[in-house]
Amino acid sequence: RTDRERLWRSLMDLARLGATPKGGVNRQALTELDRQARDLFIEWCHAEGCTVRIDAIGNIFARRPGLDPDAPVVMTGSHLDSQPTGGKFDGSYGVLAGLEVIRTLNYHDIRTRAPIEVVAWTNEEGCRFPPCMMGSGVFAGQLELEAMLAQTDAEGVTAGEALDAIGYRGSNEIDKYHIKAFFECHIEQGPILEDTDNAVGVVVGALGQKWFDLTLTGLEAHAGPTPMSLRRDAMLGAAEITQAVNRIANDHPPHGRGTVGVLQLHPGSRNVIPGQVRMTVDLRHFEPKALVAMAEELHQVVEETSQRHGLSAELKPTADFAPEHFADRCVDAVRRAAEALECSHMDIVSGAGHDAIFMSRVAPAGMIFVPCENGISHNEIENADPSDLHDGCNVLLHAMLEQAIT
Amino acid sequence: RTDRERLWRSLMDLARLGATPKGGVNRQALTELDRQARDLFIEWCHAEGCTVRIDAIGNIFARRPGLDPDAPVVMTGSHLDSQPTGGKFDGSYGVLAGLEVIRTLNYHDIRTRAPIEVVAWTNEEGCRFPPCMMGSGVFAGQLELEAMLAQTDAEGVTAGEALDAIGYRGSNEIDKYHIKAFFECHIEQGPILEDTDNAVGVVVGALGQKWFDLTLTGLEAHAGPTPMSLRRDAMLGAAEITQAVNRIANDHPPHGRGTVGVLQLHPGSRNVIPGQVRMTVDLRHFEPKALVAMAEELHQVVEETSQRHGLSAELKPTADFAPEHFADRCVDAVRRAAEALECSHMDIVSGAGHDAIFMSRVAPAGMIFVPCENGISHNEIENADPSDLHDGCNVLLHAMLEQAIT
Ligand SMILES: NC(=O)NCCC(=O)O
Ligand SMILES: NC(=O)NCCC(=O)O
Repeated sequence: RTDRERLWRSLMDLARLGATPKGGVNRQALTELDRQARDLFIEWCHAEGCTVRIDAIGNIFARRPGLDPDAPVVMTGSHLDSQPTGGKFDGSYGVLAGLEVIRTLNYHDIRTRAPIEVVAWTNEEGCRFPPCMMGSGVFAGQLELEAMLAQTDAEGVTAGEALDAIGYRGSNEIDKYHIKAFFECHIEQGPILEDTDNAVGVVVGALGQKWFDLTLTGLEAHAGPTPMSLRRDAMLGAAEITQAVNRIANDHPPHGRGTVGVLQLHPGSRNVIPGQVRMTVDLRHFEPKALVAMAEELHQVVEETSQRHGLSAELKPTADFAPEHFADRCVDAVRRAAEALECSHMDIVSGAGHDAIFMSRVAPAGMIFVPCENGISHNEIENADPSDLHDGCNVLLHAMLEQAIT
Repeated sequence: RTDRERLWRSLMDLARLGATPKGGVNRQALTELDRQARDLFIEWCHAEGCTVRIDAIGNIFARRPGLDPDAPVVMTGSHLDSQPTGGKFDGSYGVLAGLEVIRTLNYHDIRTRAPIEVVAWTNEEGCRFPPCMMGSGVFAGQLELEAMLAQTDAEGVTAGEALDAIGYRGSNEIDKYHIKAFFECHIEQGPILEDTDNAVGVVVGALGQKWFDLTLTGLEAHAGPTPMSLRRDAMLGAAEITQAVNRIANDHPPHGRGTVGVLQLHPGSRNVIPGQVRMTVDLRHFEPKALVAMAEELHQVVEETSQRHGLSAELKPTADFAPEHFADRCVDAVRRAAEALECSHMDIVSGAGHDAIFMSRVAPAGMIFVPCENGISHNEIENADPSDLHDGCNVLLHAMLEQAIT
């Protein structure tokens, strides 16, 4: 069994780096605070006798050797960076759960056939340098290293320069085809486990995502003297499309999701009919066909709505991730561990993107979710129960052990 | 007949003060540029032999004496201030059309029984110091002088300080109960005259206005892991209410107007369900009962929609103007003048607020509209046809003469 107190203490120690007044964390990727978090993680790993390697995008790999030098590695990990107003658990939990596994094995002097490796992936959040899941994406060959190093933040600093500045541009080549299994512990970032009173979610896969930028252009005009029939009101079009986005998601249960998170009106004056609206659409589904159908319905709605209101519309895809099904090996290992430990658990699909999804393209991968309070994440008030975190960590230990021993 | 070229030349001379690159005007109330415009207007008035008085809110009254010292005054005017990205005609036209009337009377040496007065009202736009129509509102006893002088701009400067800074805080008491008729020329700021090919609009009144600030609060949550059924999406509520605002206006033809001009999402991230939306609603109608009914429908829709989506809603009235019917004396005088001059004309209702509306509460008032290109106003590309401006000015001359002679 892992040590509940030790895990919690490490989480709290790490959360001091970038702590915000409201109890959250602001530790964006490749900042000085990220460096401090990385240094602390490596210090802890060295204390456990691990060897540490850093690759060209700054991912940190801490290895506990196995008995068989030829055995493929059993890996776990997540990320140390946070959103600007992020919480203490998103990412950090997955890294420190991995560390806790190594500490537990050391404490009980358990040797495994396969090496155990804990990874801290660079820039999962993507809020300073887009896109998100940069480190795991480069490692898994899903994102191009040179292009990623050239990505800039709002100040024009490149990711490569930022890596150099904190001294984390490494060079080791890590063999991605020699991984037996990759596991990631993470808070659910949604309300389902809490709603159903489960301590652990056995993650069977992740929703596919299609993101769009939509610009609707009508004619800005005075709200008083312009009769309803002569308007080309971009906001009215945006309102109808927002409703349609929700309807489309509801029409594809249970996995359909549709969200309009950004909406900017021009000129944005209370007595001027909006001449232009820029908005975003985020569509998600677990079935590839359903996700394609949702995107097609969005295209139709945008065309039909903009025509009806005399608007011009530009609908631009900005991201496209296929749905991911995790490997049976990992999903079953997680489910067996939860059963053996008598943790209340359920199968669940990840609604969010995670490093494990990119890893799943090059190795068997799986995830373990634990509840977070009210399903809230990407928020300074993000919270999780020490017992749930401990349960998830124990499931991780047992799933990894099963893979590392056999 | 008024002088088409002289009117146009003065409009273009005035438009130089605050001219913007795109051909518009930025001459906000009580700025240095407003001072220059005021100085130029007064210089022109003095050149025509007028006496000039300034009241405590900075309204400028330029008087051409009549033959009968006891005869009530026949007044006209509008405003010299503009929106930040305003046009050359909104306001300026009404002031300079009045000046052109005096110039024409002088040129033809026509003496009137009643004095003729041209007014430049302070701060009609309200964009620097809310509310709009400040000068005419104070003059007509609809707004409180001391409260208005204490209004601040974005930098914290009070209207009183700004008046002092440009040297336009006057003290003369002008007798508002000795006005026989007030007329205001203005561009329509809407598309109706152009659409129906009329040179002049005989304004019979103005739509009442009810403005609201609405805040919808739900729960911000991650767009991926949060199932549709567990959301409290403030944007979805805002979208439904936006559609309802339009439907309510359409349900009250032909004068109903409903506009959502401002909509701000929190946190405004593409993969976060908006937890809060702040928006504005602008409702207008010509029938008092219909306007009240529209506001009641809005209240119902807000309550029903927010309940259905698990949102809390705060609906706050921010402005309330009753519909205005202009006095028969002025409306008929304008219509007779248009007929006598064989100007194509139609009766029209003003959709926007104007100084004449406040004046109508203390004296018989009326307005003359002329078309503006594509109905566009509050925009640097605002444009009007010199012939239409001339027609409107001629109608003003004849309507004022009729009132000033009899
Ligand atoms: N885990 C997480 O917040 N990923 C960000 C990308 C997404 O929206 O799914
Ligand atoms: N004329 C004008 O633009 N007035 C502003 C107030 C309104 O929205 O009607």
